[in-house]
Amino acid sequence: MNAFVAMSENPRIQQIIEKYKPIWALNHAFALLGWDLETYMPTGASEPRGFAQAQLTMLKQERVIALSGLISEAQKDTNLSENDKGVLRIVGREVDYYTKVPSTLIEQLQRTATEANVVWREARRKSEFSKFQPYLEKLVELKRLETEKLGYHGHPYNALLDKFEEGLTVDDVDAIFSRLVPRLKQILTKVTAEKRYPAHHPLESQKYEEAAMKKVNMDLLTLLGMPKENFRLDISTHPFTSSMAVNDVRITTRYEGVDFKEAISHVIHESGHAIYELQIDPTLEYTPLVNAPSLGLHESQSRFWENFVGRSKEFTKLIHPILRKNLPFVSGYEDDEIYRYFNMIRPSLIRVEADEITYNFHIVLRYELEKRLIAGDVSASEIPAVWSNMMEEYVGIKPGTDAEGSLQDIHWSSGDFGYFPTYSLGNVIAGMIFNRIRKDMNLEENIKNGRLIEIRKWLREHIHGWGGIYSPKELQQRIFGEVYNPDRLIAYLESKFLT
Amino acid sequence: MNAFVAMSENPRIQQIIEKYKPIWALNHAFALLGWDLETYMPTGASEPRGFAQAQLTMLKQERVIALSGLISEAQKDTNLSENDKGVLRIVGREVDYYTKVPSTLIEQLQRTATEANVVWREARRKSEFSKFQPYLEKLVELKRLETEKLGYHGHPYNALLDKFEEGLTVDDVDAIFSRLVPRLKQILTKVTAEKRYPAHHPLESQKYEEAAMKKVNMDLLTLLGMPKENFRLDISTHPFTSSMAVNDVRITTRYEGVDFKEAISHVIHESGHAIYELQIDPTLEYTPLVNAPSLGLHESQSRFWENFVGRSKEFTKLIHPILRKNLPFVSGYEDDEIYRYFNMIRPSLIRVEADEITYNFHIVLRYELEKRLIAGDVSASEIPAVWSNMMEEYVGIKPGTDAEGSLQDIHWSSGDFGYFPTYSLGNVIAGMIFNRIRKDMNLEENIKNGRLIEIRKWLREHIHGWGGIYSPKELQQRIFGEVYNPDRLIAYLESKFLT
Repeated sequence: MNAFVAMSENPRIQQIIEKYKPIWALNHAFALLGWDLETYMPTGASEPRGFAQAQLTMLKQERVIALSGLISEAQKDTNLSENDKGVLRIVGREVDYYTKVPSTLIEQLQRTATEANVVWREARRKSEFSKFQPYLEKLVELKRLETEKLGYHGHPYNALLDKFEEGLTVDDVDAIFSRLVPRLKQILTKVTAEKRYPAHHPLESQKYEEAAMKKVNMDLLTLLGMPKENFRLDISTHPFTSSMAVNDVRITTRYEGVDFKEAISHVIHESGHAIYELQIDPTLEYTPLVNAPSLGLHESQSRFWENFVGRSKEFTKLIHPILRKNLPFVSGYEDDEIYRYFNMIRPSLIRVEADEITYNFHIVLRYELEKRLIAGDVSASEIPAVWSNMMEEYVGIKPGTDAEGSLQDIHWSSGDFGYFPTYSLGNVIAGMIFNRIRKDMNLEENIKNGRLIEIRKWLREHIHGWGGIYSPKELQQRIFGEVYNPDRLIAYLESKFLT
Repeated sequence: MNAFVAMSENPRIQQIIEKYKPIWALNHAFALLGWDLETYMPTGASEPRGFAQAQLTMLKQERVIALSGLISEAQKDTNLSENDKGVLRIVGREVDYYTKVPSTLIEQLQRTATEANVVWREARRKSEFSKFQPYLEKLVELKRLETEKLGYHGHPYNALLDKFEEGLTVDDVDAIFSRLVPRLKQILTKVTAEKRYPAHHPLESQKYEEAAMKKVNMDLLTLLGMPKENFRLDISTHPFTSSMAVNDVRITTRYEGVDFKEAISHVIHESGHAIYELQIDPTLEYTPLVNAPSLGLHESQSRFWENFVGRSKEFTKLIHPILRKNLPFVSGYEDDEIYRYFNMIRPSLIRVEADEITYNFHIVLRYELEKRLIAGDVSASEIPAVWSNMMEEYVGIKPGTDAEGSLQDIHWSSGDFGYFPTYSLGNVIAGMIFNRIRKDMNLEENIKNGRLIEIRKWLREHIHGWGGIYSPKELQQRIFGEVYNPDRLIAYLESKFLT
């Protein structure tokens, strides 16, 4: 048992912390159940797994709602520490959610999403949007009902944004994209015209051996300083990070067997998420504070490591020996050529294949569609056509099939509306980190010399260590003196790609 | 979600079944948490894992105790089905345990066991019993307290036996061993004198490649009919079986790199446990009935497959092609020689290395010691000396060190007093199965022809399918018309080794 757990001098907060322990334990179990589902669970075992998750969700719900009275009382207290306020904020949000959204609706959403997920897989395989359409309609209907139950100011989509990114509104996101999109278009046009970054590269069709790539990954993880005793790497269809505890964080990757920069990106991206979880102050363990404040902040870490560090000239040079040692076909390429391969710029139809510049176009498209779906301004049946037109508007190309269009992502089938924007927030915040961290260190020099520990330290001190004490906007204000400022990302991209 | 879950026409029982679902879900989580702990969990993550398990145990406890009223009411009902009675019996036992044993004692036992476990590992490594002694004293004291809380008729050890094997008493176990021990000694003396079964064999020092042994295991699992979609094999320090659900059952094994019969035994033994779990009637899923009635019955399955099937002439012949295909060094040996290697008979100091004949001597020794420890007739400090004398009495040899004496097993350090006897019950019941199944089929012929499915079917029909509907004694009475009869095991061993 842990000798030290965060304490509060406020007796009500202390009671909340105590009563939160079984909720933490349920979250620990959820994390393991979810990780196992994607990694080792036998394929025929999804039914009991779903049953267990639903039952445990009800247990959690009950425990959260039971904190309602304590929360209301504690909210009257005036002399609260920062940590106390964090506890109140986080648990208050959970109580609020479970109190406002009836368990019948939660269950209906879960059940519909489970069915929709199966149908979506089939629809995507056959590239037939019409198969998925009724499920999308139903899910949108249920999500709209959820927004009504949750309540909102302004746009109903705000209620969904807030679930993943506390306090985020369509006004925030509109402001970000209205600044970001035209500038990204300018950058793209220029990069494409100047041809300094390739649209194609011979290495993207180069096949690799899984065993060799595993060795590359192991070396990368060592370079990134991932602790063997608190961390593991496994394989799953879609790479993800799962944290069971501050000292039990796991990532997954996949091996496509070709185009090795993707494999490298997966591992660096997920390690970015993992480093966040591993560096949360361990005294916050077992409390409501032992989480990142939002998905946007979490994604800023994976993006910062994957793109700002991982696709830099210095990093590609740093890992060149690792590549050469394990991947014989790399030997014919100079550092600069590897750098160019890592930074191919090419408008594409598929989000997960998009480069640093065009990635955000894929997000604004989904954001605009979700907003309209939830507002009722567009119906599910219109999605393929609207998608197609928007793709042309943002990326300049149209999908030939639904599979490479509106059926490409899992999110809608899981009922995760409001999630996509956090990917762009991740890019935006990573840009703010890039801007800010370089005031404290010579970032390029540290990367070049493999002193990644300096970057980890900085991130722990400024971001990770705080866990969920501050809301995403508060935390940004404290670190950067500004919130979701897209200009930092723009400046970085312009400097990287245009100078 | 499952469309069909066992229902009862009795509304109180139906309510119990409904309210048991979150308990089932917690058990599902416990199974996964435990499996992960032994297989994939990062080494530095045991503290949060222990914390989560303790918290979830408290949740379970609370849920179980909440069923107390419904149980008392339902017990008054007279028109109960067999399934209803099973539900009442099983949940009644759980309520009884958590009601009688205060949660403070459960927690103290868990905490002490966690500490004792660490100390035991160190003590065993250094072979110093004195290091472990104070923890053994403390654990015995707590277990005696537990017997007082639980209450018992006759010997206090009965309270502990009953936890693992419902209704088992020292009178039962004394009756078994007083019949078994002298006969086993006779068999051993004769086998040793006749030298028909070797005490040593060149294959026991033959090294093997892990990769080759994995292929053998895969072929064995196919032969045993283990379903890929509901089953997996992983690696852990000590082989075990874990069931998350009827269609999610997992076993583990280990690769010592030498003496391949051990590796084969592990996989067949654990598969025997797994087949039990996989063949419980799936309509019992999510109810209190979806478990074997006792450890003795569970062990009867692993022992039956490992020894009665796995060490038979027919089976060694059946798997000879698998061995030859994957283990080149086997090619020089005839079927009969492989059979002799699989059936080496040699009194040894280590329980887990013991053969079919001497194994039970190791159990009676532990049983006698536990009984005396719990009765206060022997103190922890006397254990090494008493152990040594008893080993000489039963097995004819004395341990040279504590590591190969009283420190060899993990059970005491985990507080599992009353567990050991179920190993011998497993052998005894396996003997009864061997006797009974041969009235319904030509067992040898089925093994010879690889028709193991016939054995699986018989076991499902007579044992597995019933789940926990009947108590261990009731179930035996129904199948065999007799209970824990050691004569069947004796007859089998005499026939195998003396004729």
